[in-house]
Amino acid sequence: MHAGIRYRERPDLALIAADSEAVAAGVFTRNQFAAAPVLLCREHLKRGQARAILVNAGIANACTGEEGLQAAREMAGMVAQGLGAPREAILVASTGVIGAQIPLLVIETTVPKLIENLRSDGWEDVARAIMTTDTVPKQASVQMALGGHLATITGVAKGAGMIAPDMATLLVFVASDVAVSADALQELLRDAAEASFNRITIDGDTSTNDTLLALASGRAGNAPITDAASEAGRVFAAGLQAVLVDLAKQIVRDGEGATKFIEVRIVGAADAESARQVALTIANSPLVKTALFGEDANWGRVVAAAGRAGVAMDPARVALFFDDVCVFREGKPVAGPEVEAEASRVFKGKEITIRLDLGAGDAGYSAYTCDLSYDYVKINASYRS
Amino acid sequence: MHAGIRYRERPDLALIAADSEAVAAGVFTRNQFAAAPVLLCREHLKRGQARAILVNAGIANACTGEEGLQAAREMAGMVAQGLGAPREAILVASTGVIGAQIPLLVIETTVPKLIENLRSDGWEDVARAIMTTDTVPKQASVQMALGGHLATITGVAKGAGMIAPDMATLLVFVASDVAVSADALQELLRDAAEASFNRITIDGDTSTNDTLLALASGRAGNAPITDAASEAGRVFAAGLQAVLVDLAKQIVRDGEGATKFIEVRIVGAADAESARQVALTIANSPLVKTALFGEDANWGRVVAAAGRAGVAMDPARVALFFDDVCVFREGKPVAGPEVEAEASRVFKGKEITIRLDLGAGDAGYSAYTCDLSYDYVKINASYRS
Repeated sequence: MHAGIRYRERPDLALIAADSEAVAAGVFTRNQFAAAPVLLCREHLKRGQARAILVNAGIANACTGEEGLQAAREMAGMVAQGLGAPREAILVASTGVIGAQIPLLVIETTVPKLIENLRSDGWEDVARAIMTTDTVPKQASVQMALGGHLATITGVAKGAGMIAPDMATLLVFVASDVAVSADALQELLRDAAEASFNRITIDGDTSTNDTLLALASGRAGNAPITDAASEAGRVFAAGLQAVLVDLAKQIVRDGEGATKFIEVRIVGAADAESARQVALTIANSPLVKTALFGEDANWGRVVAAAGRAGVAMDPARVALFFDDVCVFREGKPVAGPEVEAEASRVFKGKEITIRLDLGAGDAGYSAYTCDLSYDYVKINASYRS
Repeated sequence: MHAGIRYRERPDLALIAADSEAVAAGVFTRNQFAAAPVLLCREHLKRGQARAILVNAGIANACTGEEGLQAAREMAGMVAQGLGAPREAILVASTGVIGAQIPLLVIETTVPKLIENLRSDGWEDVARAIMTTDTVPKQASVQMALGGHLATITGVAKGAGMIAPDMATLLVFVASDVAVSADALQELLRDAAEASFNRITIDGDTSTNDTLLALASGRAGNAPITDAASEAGRVFAAGLQAVLVDLAKQIVRDGEGATKFIEVRIVGAADAESARQVALTIANSPLVKTALFGEDANWGRVVAAAGRAGVAMDPARVALFFDDVCVFREGKPVAGPEVEAEASRVFKGKEITIRLDLGAGDAGYSAYTCDLSYDYVKINASYRS
């Protein structure tokens, strides 16, 4: 709904609620200036269950001191009162400008209306209400069978800028009817975040508000999952990962100013950590990203970024491919006008895979990013105005 | 002189020569794909002395395999022959596009003309010949007294893009008439690079060709400096650092698309390494840099970047200043429309100091950077075309 927190004519407040308390888990930013709602969620999640999540867009409630934390508590209190739940059962998330205080009055006016209008098909409304510089709402859903019971996982997310590993200005809310213990849900959520949101980067900037929350009601009727490594745990993990990877890719596609979707796939690395470092260094290189925007198949910039990643490599054993076109191997470019023409054709596409084989082992890692365009600069040069 | 390596109507080849062999030292990129001329210089500098430096712009001779290394050797050979010096006495540096081979024929034709036209007042011509996307030539010079002898240090540099700590796409050549041992010169050069070029960043990208070379002829007649820590060593160190810091700042001012010069000054850090990490994380943040371009005093982005630098900090003890205007302290923004107005005024300036006090100790570090503008994207989206 539109509460009037900062935006004039669009929804900016959403409520996700379970019929009764659900098992709950969360993954949060590692930024040292974690926002007030993040501090509140960490505190409330100690219970391992929650009834509802109140989310606002427009103001991040970050760097707001004790007053900001008090505001987050009051937001939780308003929902708790309306739903007849303990205040600790309410989670809060915020996104938007850093440093401003949340106008509690408009929240207080709107929360009862949100509660009154709760319905089971409101996911798209939630996805729209949490947008900031996002241009499209982001949703994903999967269904699976767990011992003869049909279970569903549905998620919504917002992203757009300040997106980097260790979460992003990323709010993600996942709900499922699966029966699962709080510990297992926390473990599964952390693993799925590692395989999805921790692999995407738009600008290398990690926000103060990154929040991934999951609620699981148990209404599916399956035998409760208490071990993430059990068969049911693995089936649920695959579904959860599918939803989060889908949302993560949607976020990259809708990155601020993005015109292309890029997978940076490292193979042949000595170990996974080396592969990760090289992948993220390439994915965050402004020179690589502007070359992608300019559709200039400038492989030299990719190689130069790989070479400064802090990972030892033997140039003679490295090979670089744009999609399936090998442009560099044995320490020098693959010669010929056809190669240049093929590489240029690849760069005109909307989806490009940069594949770098380090020739040093069997480990790999994929990072996902977008190009760096005029519009990224435009959006971010005047975000607050 | 214009050799025709890649550019049509501008000088692209320069020769710096001493009358006889001079003491020589160098500092180079740590990129794993170090370019052929870098490999050659590392080899030739083992002698601790050199006669001349041949530099070309337009082609970097990086990622060019054995053929590229052979080309660098031949370039050195051409100069050696012309000057009557051993080939190992000639250093070579290149800047420009990665992956292309150097056209040796045009070099061979031009080198004799360069030798014929050597003169003592050609510094500005050298500074112009080594430019790539630079818009102005960069020179600096100081004089000092060393035990009654006047000594001079003069340097030229090129930069513009792919500039990051651990050197940059940076070519810097320094000449002095000071008498100094090779070991002392190497130590002094490394220290001065740490205080200058290793503190600047334009886009976080470290190049394959970064090269800082120094020649010292001994013609000043001072008692040779053999100990960097001696009194004369310290006087020379101060002069050398002054020249390199001056050149480093010129490079930032002329960063690709730069409209502002920014010092990110960290104070009150627990240790120097923490201060450095925080300074460079802020200086490389695209969100901070686009806010600077947009003249939006968005302190939240500075705080958020500091918070993701991997350094533990207590938000309640951190204070942030734009020039002398305190915008954030005790975990929240300093309130009031006057503060916002003053901060906005600071952001309209061409030189801005972002000062962050971590409140954790006595260590500090300054990094230098520029803003991120439309022109950065424009220049880099079409660099090869």
